[in-house]
Amino acid sequence: MNNNPTLHDVAKAAGVSVATVSNVMNGKKGQVSEKTKAKVEAAVESLGYQPNTYARQLKSGQSNLVAFIVPDQNPFFTDILNGLTTVCLEYNLQVIVISSEESEQRQNELIDLFVKQRVNAIVLAPVSSHLTLKDEWKKTPIVTVDRTIETSDVPSVTVNNQAAGYQATKHLLELGHTSIAILLANPKISTTTHRQAGYEQALMDNQLTVDARLMSFSDDKLGTEAQIRSGYLATKQWLTSKDAPSALIATNYLLMIGALQAFKELDIQIGKDISFIGFDNSHWNEIYSPAITVVEQPASKLGECAAQLIIEMNNDELATSVELSTHLAIRASCAKKNER
Amino acid sequence: MNNNPTLHDVAKAAGVSVATVSNVMNGKKGQVSEKTKAKVEAAVESLGYQPNTYARQLKSGQSNLVAFIVPDQNPFFTDILNGLTTVCLEYNLQVIVISSEESEQRQNELIDLFVKQRVNAIVLAPVSSHLTLKDEWKKTPIVTVDRTIETSDVPSVTVNNQAAGYQATKHLLELGHTSIAILLANPKISTTTHRQAGYEQALMDNQLTVDARLMSFSDDKLGTEAQIRSGYLATKQWLTSKDAPSALIATNYLLMIGALQAFKELDIQIGKDISFIGFDNSHWNEIYSPAITVVEQPASKLGECAAQLIIEMNNDELATSVELSTHLAIRASCAKKNER
Repeated sequence: MNNNPTLHDVAKAAGVSVATVSNVMNGKKGQVSEKTKAKVEAAVESLGYQPNTYARQLKSGQSNLVAFIVPDQNPFFTDILNGLTTVCLEYNLQVIVISSEESEQRQNELIDLFVKQRVNAIVLAPVSSHLTLKDEWKKTPIVTVDRTIETSDVPSVTVNNQAAGYQATKHLLELGHTSIAILLANPKISTTTHRQAGYEQALMDNQLTVDARLMSFSDDKLGTEAQIRSGYLATKQWLTSKDAPSALIATNYLLMIGALQAFKELDIQIGKDISFIGFDNSHWNEIYSPAITVVEQPASKLGECAAQLIIEMNNDELATSVELSTHLAIRASCAKKNER
Repeated sequence: MNNNPTLHDVAKAAGVSVATVSNVMNGKKGQVSEKTKAKVEAAVESLGYQPNTYARQLKSGQSNLVAFIVPDQNPFFTDILNGLTTVCLEYNLQVIVISSEESEQRQNELIDLFVKQRVNAIVLAPVSSHLTLKDEWKKTPIVTVDRTIETSDVPSVTVNNQAAGYQATKHLLELGHTSIAILLANPKISTTTHRQAGYEQALMDNQLTVDARLMSFSDDKLGTEAQIRSGYLATKQWLTSKDAPSALIATNYLLMIGALQAFKELDIQIGKDISFIGFDNSHWNEIYSPAITVVEQPASKLGECAAQLIIEMNNDELATSVELSTHLAIRASCAKKNER
């Protein structure tokens, strides 16, 4: 990591796209107007941007491709891809994306395939926190993003998921809620277990016991729609039960969609009948009524850091895992618990 | 196109993922339980599914990869990818995705790259309807999806965009609206010009004149966020003007987000102060209040048809362009025009 200006900074200063800056820097000026070229060059000058010479240092036989293996179609991964692509473009690397569809076997076959294709690196959001690297994979730099692997020594870029779970739960506790339900994804992935640990810690720090009936896990083997459905079904069950919780946390975007479906169907007023916290950035969080309080993850930054790691590994530098912070964006979906 | 059962049908009948069926069919049963294997085999039997022998017929030197070049991060393309991947998996083809970021030069460089990588085919959502194929590209099957190319003879899979624009406009006209604004994307792409033509035709069929002040085009060169902002700015300008329209159509998902941002900021009640029609499927359309009337495109089906086309082209069969229909999903965001 360093604080040198990036291609992204130049693009912003010049008011053009990253692709355009890349074209000017790489001398591919065919479709760039003289005016745009001058703007880019002025921005390069004023920021003191130093273009990378990485592309000329590529190991021979490499493909100039970076493979990003995502587990499902959560738009969170699109945001990670943005950051990843921005930095990779500076190094003349193209990022290709493919989904493992939550299948561990498919994931491993894809790694085989990309290692054979001689991609420069693989960025992986692993299907499970248990993965043993095959010997033939070790010649290709692999980093994980969003999720970690416990059983192998693979550098990762993650957020502090335990703190994220803690922070969301604490916010609801401070509003007086004591019956807080939580929608969690597949327990096989590290983000799930860490967010769960933060939730439990916050309850225990407030002398509350953890009630397994208020925790729902999705078995996300069948992908995107199955996770949404899992969030919907658990929320519906909780809110139609005798001891309905007064607050609910959905620990990813897909689970959040499912919870909102259930609220709508049951005509539950968010911020009144239920206090609700979701996860991840989405334009909908702000245009929804009421606007939704969420744990925001720095998704694009995760992608940028993953790109930096693979560049370092390609240069045979020592790569160190990175952990970023989340931010609780407080909007209108949580209210003080009514005394009954 | 044929009506034989697909891998998707087998997966549905067996209650497992497409990836699992593919693993069973390809004899990769390592991680599949005996019980699951039996379920898949029973479904294959009862549906009379015939596995494809395509993989064994591959031309030598091909990579088993299909490249899907998208222009931006509209989730619509994720839905297309779903259908594309489902069919490609049946043929043991892996789909990789990459974004051209609305840059024609970048798009053409990506085509160069993938032709050199010997991908089996390229599925392209072109940045512009004007593209001349280079000679060296002609050995690789290319099909366009969503958008067409006017200047070259490339098979395409599209929806009837003119009918979609007509249908949305007609719905508003039937509710009594005569001042109908429309948010359109970049005029360089075929979807834009065809949706615009449908809108104009519907007005003319009702003896209304087309008012250029009620049409806004986004120059989407700067990507996803720029399109959202374009929808936001145009909507805000219309709704704060003296002659505010009583109805608005947003002709894609990103423009729709921008319009909703403006409604929220101006405290405009949808279905009351403004009648609103969006585009494309999204879970949010139904959980939003009021639920949003949209033109639904068969996105996944577009992807499936594109896959069928490339398989046909790989087999040196004659490939014919496909046009699918859209559907107006009527919800609660449009109301009868009040007489004033």
